[in-house]
Amino acid sequence: MAKQFEGPILPFLRLDAAAALPKFRQVQDQLRMAILRGHLRAGTRLPASRILAEELGLSRQTLVRVLENLKAEGYLEARQGAGTFVSAALPRQLPKPRFTPAEGDIPPRLSRIGALSRALSANIGRMEQKPFLPNQPALDCFPFAVWRKCWNAATRGGRAAMGYGDVAGELMLRQRIAEYLALHRRDPCDPEQIVITPGGHAAFTLAALALADPGDGIWFEDPGPVTTSNLFRTLGLTLCPVDVDAEGMNVAGAMARHPDARLAFVMPSRHHPLGVTLSLPRRLALLEWARANDTWIIEDDYDSEFRYDGAPLPSMRSIDSNGRVIYAGSFSKALYPGIRIGYLVLPPPLVGTFRNLSGLIHRSVPVETQLALAEFIGGGHFASHLRRMRGLYAERRAAFQEAGRVALAGLARIDCSESGLNALAWLEKSGDRTAHRVVLDAGLQCYPLSDYTIATPRPSALILGYAGVPAERMKPYLGRFAEALSRS
Amino acid sequence: MAKQFEGPILPFLRLDAAAALPKFRQVQDQLRMAILRGHLRAGTRLPASRILAEELGLSRQTLVRVLENLKAEGYLEARQGAGTFVSAALPRQLPKPRFTPAEGDIPPRLSRIGALSRALSANIGRMEQKPFLPNQPALDCFPFAVWRKCWNAATRGGRAAMGYGDVAGELMLRQRIAEYLALHRRDPCDPEQIVITPGGHAAFTLAALALADPGDGIWFEDPGPVTTSNLFRTLGLTLCPVDVDAEGMNVAGAMARHPDARLAFVMPSRHHPLGVTLSLPRRLALLEWARANDTWIIEDDYDSEFRYDGAPLPSMRSIDSNGRVIYAGSFSKALYPGIRIGYLVLPPPLVGTFRNLSGLIHRSVPVETQLALAEFIGGGHFASHLRRMRGLYAERRAAFQEAGRVALAGLARIDCSESGLNALAWLEKSGDRTAHRVVLDAGLQCYPLSDYTIATPRPSALILGYAGVPAERMKPYLGRFAEALSRS
Repeated sequence: MAKQFEGPILPFLRLDAAAALPKFRQVQDQLRMAILRGHLRAGTRLPASRILAEELGLSRQTLVRVLENLKAEGYLEARQGAGTFVSAALPRQLPKPRFTPAEGDIPPRLSRIGALSRALSANIGRMEQKPFLPNQPALDCFPFAVWRKCWNAATRGGRAAMGYGDVAGELMLRQRIAEYLALHRRDPCDPEQIVITPGGHAAFTLAALALADPGDGIWFEDPGPVTTSNLFRTLGLTLCPVDVDAEGMNVAGAMARHPDARLAFVMPSRHHPLGVTLSLPRRLALLEWARANDTWIIEDDYDSEFRYDGAPLPSMRSIDSNGRVIYAGSFSKALYPGIRIGYLVLPPPLVGTFRNLSGLIHRSVPVETQLALAEFIGGGHFASHLRRMRGLYAERRAAFQEAGRVALAGLARIDCSESGLNALAWLEKSGDRTAHRVVLDAGLQCYPLSDYTIATPRPSALILGYAGVPAERMKPYLGRFAEALSRS
Repeated sequence: MAKQFEGPILPFLRLDAAAALPKFRQVQDQLRMAILRGHLRAGTRLPASRILAEELGLSRQTLVRVLENLKAEGYLEARQGAGTFVSAALPRQLPKPRFTPAEGDIPPRLSRIGALSRALSANIGRMEQKPFLPNQPALDCFPFAVWRKCWNAATRGGRAAMGYGDVAGELMLRQRIAEYLALHRRDPCDPEQIVITPGGHAAFTLAALALADPGDGIWFEDPGPVTTSNLFRTLGLTLCPVDVDAEGMNVAGAMARHPDARLAFVMPSRHHPLGVTLSLPRRLALLEWARANDTWIIEDDYDSEFRYDGAPLPSMRSIDSNGRVIYAGSFSKALYPGIRIGYLVLPPPLVGTFRNLSGLIHRSVPVETQLALAEFIGGGHFASHLRRMRGLYAERRAAFQEAGRVALAGLARIDCSESGLNALAWLEKSGDRTAHRVVLDAGLQCYPLSDYTIATPRPSALILGYAGVPAERMKPYLGRFAEALSRS
């Protein structure tokens, strides 16, 4: 015989007349909770709905609706002629109330990748948009009206942009990118060799997952971008730091010290943050190493568009005779970081694998944005935007150099390379971590070079982005920067 | 003594007056190629620029520009008073001309994940937008004008939307999602527990990478979506197929056969493609298994918004007392697939790890889209869109059922579950793969149930999406469908 619930019904129900949630939902949620918490045990018979409704001050119709819903969810069951019961199929022992340990109390059970990610939290916080934030293009001069026009033109069709789209990215965008690379990077490729990704980091992730197993070595320039090295570490790769001099990555040194690496990650057009270019003999040596050892080169060509003393340098991919280079491009610097579109140009034998892997782990990239971008490139807006930005950044760079030489005399030596969006300030007195904190306190942005260091310490320097700062603001901002430095 | 190039200069230069590329670029590209191909060897002296210019029909100024560019790239070098030379630093043996093997000729060297992706290509081709394409919402009724208004409102600020944004997703969107889940899924959470991802698959990828190592087992409903099972297989997990009956995943069977699994992937609100709901006793058993074994449950709640016989069922997460459920949501069905925004609601101890991992492998999700979506939810448009779609889909479902019963009599039995966007047509005569091909030939879409089968064969059935088809088109399309079936 099932026991009936006795006494004043449901002392654990507290209806709140002032709450936004309608009363029937309150009753329903609280009844469910009472069952889950074991106040109402499996097999218990509920009082007749007429009595329950009265006691709760609900209409009988409303109460019946509540009971029906809880039956549909499996909490209650009706027995022919006998009334409504807490479902007998429920286990006697129900889970205890929700338990939320403070983060870090008991480490949760994670995979190796999960445990690595937990530990590598340091450097991917919010990047506050303050003057001199590195890697920032001139968002104030982005042709937003034209971009929106392209957006509207591309999405006019509506339905076309709303499906999943091609796993390798929309053909139309791949064609525009191939044309751009042929014309402006002198590096023709077939649009079928391109895979579009949700940003540059996703492109590196694809390459690392497809080409290297956990434990495999990857050559990585030291210093180098910490979010990228953390990505490879997190995926379980063994980071092989390679020192960088005026000719770029020390390829001979890497061959001697890390001969078994499976991958090389390199920024040949412009090293970040040192600003140097990989020399031609080293490019050829790197390509030869990859050919001879059946290894792969990830070429990160993140901002080669901005070169102030001539045309952009040809990519490594363009002189790769053996199909060893995975070329990674992105629109974060050329347009704006929030666009989250990157791409890879692949040697033909890798295309199928990368299409599948990208389709599985991302499925596809926002189709609207892809079509808007194809329209933006196809309409000539991309080329003319780059041309304008090159002029603008050259101007900002000159203003930065001139104002910096005066303001920072005796404090730091300014070092603008011939390309890119950033400069280095080599500090003459203070350590860069201390200087970094003082500069942040002064309402400006910069990154300390030490954050990029992997194995080889370097003299102190701060990385500053000048491209996002109007020329006429350089003097006052650098004045404030100098004042902060002199305090550190 | 360096040898000088002799005879008619540069027989390998072919200037094309009709080409779009300016002549100086043609000369520059061809000279570079001549060096890379070894026609001009390291240390070779070039003729005087006056002679070269004459021979090539270029102005001397233009030729000087070409030579300067090639010096900057490292191909040429000037020696004081002696002229211009092919750089002596270049290796004597240069790489051979570009080699492009046909795909599949020689398998490239891949990681284990890469090799698995190469093999798992089958089912992620282009999904043609034809009538009855499964999982398609009613794109014809999407409130595009409102969406664009939200887009414009959200991007009016301009700069705010152009930076990288928060690695966990914009706080504003996480707040709107938390409110939506509290109100409509009766499942309150803190916005800090949410991580926004570039689509639902990216969310599964994050969870699999963070929680399971290669070789670890994952419970997976059989039948189940092949793109998702292929994703887990590609990442190296061991797929543990679990049979599905009228109460959903057979949890007791899984515990008996695959006790060591590390993860369970489950679709409790509505199994795809069978349409069944996981019963409450099994939900509780699954939660208890995860608690007792320190394992994790990925709850895929991909289309619970569309339930035609009452309010959506509560999620498993809402009754999880021990923080074992990783809840995965997506806007692909509720809005449209091309939006590529998904999210995870995490137990608090996992939040830090997932934020870091997401920040490393994706960096962030398009900020514009996130803000537009936050505006769309916050303005009440999401709730009212869902309400309208529920009504519309109920209508389309009824029309589909009614027309199907008549048209398919003797050919197939129609099975529309109480929720979702799809129906099953259980075939009475033909095999589903044959039937699938015939239906495609008739200009319609569907998926064969066999494609979803992992280990346990089932009777033949086709999966059809009715939500994307206007009610008045059901009769003619189902007529065409029946005609195709009767031919198969």
